[in-house]
Amino acid sequence: MKAMEEKILKEGKVLPGGILKVGNFLNQRIDSLFLREIGCEIARLYAGCGVTKILTIESSGIAIAAAAGMEMGVPVVFAKKHKSSNVDGEVYATTVHSFTHGNDYRAVVARDYLCGGDTVLLVDDFLASGNALQGLLQLTEMAGATAAGAAIAIEKRFQGGGDALREKGIRVESLACIQEMDDESIRFCQI
Amino acid sequence: MKAMEEKILKEGKVLPGGILKVGNFLNQRIDSLFLREIGCEIARLYAGCGVTKILTIESSGIAIAAAAGMEMGVPVVFAKKHKSSNVDGEVYATTVHSFTHGNDYRAVVARDYLCGGDTVLLVDDFLASGNALQGLLQLTEMAGATAAGAAIAIEKRFQGGGDALREKGIRVESLACIQEMDDESIRFCQI
Repeated sequence: MKAMEEKILKEGKVLPGGILKVGNFLNQRIDSLFLREIGCEIARLYAGCGVTKILTIESSGIAIAAAAGMEMGVPVVFAKKHKSSNVDGEVYATTVHSFTHGNDYRAVVARDYLCGGDTVLLVDDFLASGNALQGLLQLTEMAGATAAGAAIAIEKRFQGGGDALREKGIRVESLACIQEMDDESIRFCQI
Repeated sequence: MKAMEEKILKEGKVLPGGILKVGNFLNQRIDSLFLREIGCEIARLYAGCGVTKILTIESSGIAIAAAAGMEMGVPVVFAKKHKSSNVDGEVYATTVHSFTHGNDYRAVVARDYLCGGDTVLLVDDFLASGNALQGLLQLTEMAGATAAGAAIAIEKRFQGGGDALREKGIRVESLACIQEMDDESIRFCQI
């Protein structure tokens, strides 16, 4: 999605430690009109794939998932993050390691909200090491549902998470895919 | 908003402790088509009010704020919740007491994302004691911005938070306003 690449080049900032800051348009401060374009593009990519539900994880995946859900006309479910492993039996739960924060958390979704017959589209803002997305995939599998694939706003391909999922046979669509980046430049993958 | 009242009566559940569970359509599992209606209604209520930004708080306010933002064509900013009071100087921060969880947290927004010239619409899923909304109002005032008012999916009027804000002169619009509720019935305010 050319518009995503342009937006990253114009408004993104590369911070030390391989962090790409896009808080000005994608998370924290959300450019609503651009968000609608993102929703349309995700709907276009997964049109005709029989998606019945979108699954994301709080917080920064929610707006993107909501925009896609409104375009596709399917419900959006978000997994919650819990610090403790003590969650009740009415949920599917899995442990996710956060590279950004250097800790583990539990990703939790109520059993009522994910069903065996669902065809689930996984949505998130970033895909780097892929741990959050692997967690969402596990929750999908726990429910006996099928993953249609993943739609990601920005993939940092050099961190390998996207390719690990593709090797598993999961379709991964990234609206912008970064091959490499440093303080001075960001280079996108040629698709 | 008649549709919100109907949805609450049909899909909401009153739990012990005065909790109204609407996880099936408003948070956790979001009914996307209904979410679009919510966005349209909020846009209608605040049309012509010069709103330049929507401010909400993670997590369950985000989808509603995004839907309203897309309809109104204005950016959405969300305050983050922090456990610690140790946040850096580039932010506006205030302490909010959570009745639901019985603890305090810091509501934090980067200074870059809220400006003195902004006319801010505060959005959230619930308004009960009003602490979260008071926090958002404080962040707005810290930035030197003006609050256009608040748009809330569900107000539990018997908890008093909405009226406390109205007494301060803040416009509060609730898409459904609950006068009283118990295990057997939910009674809405007649507006």
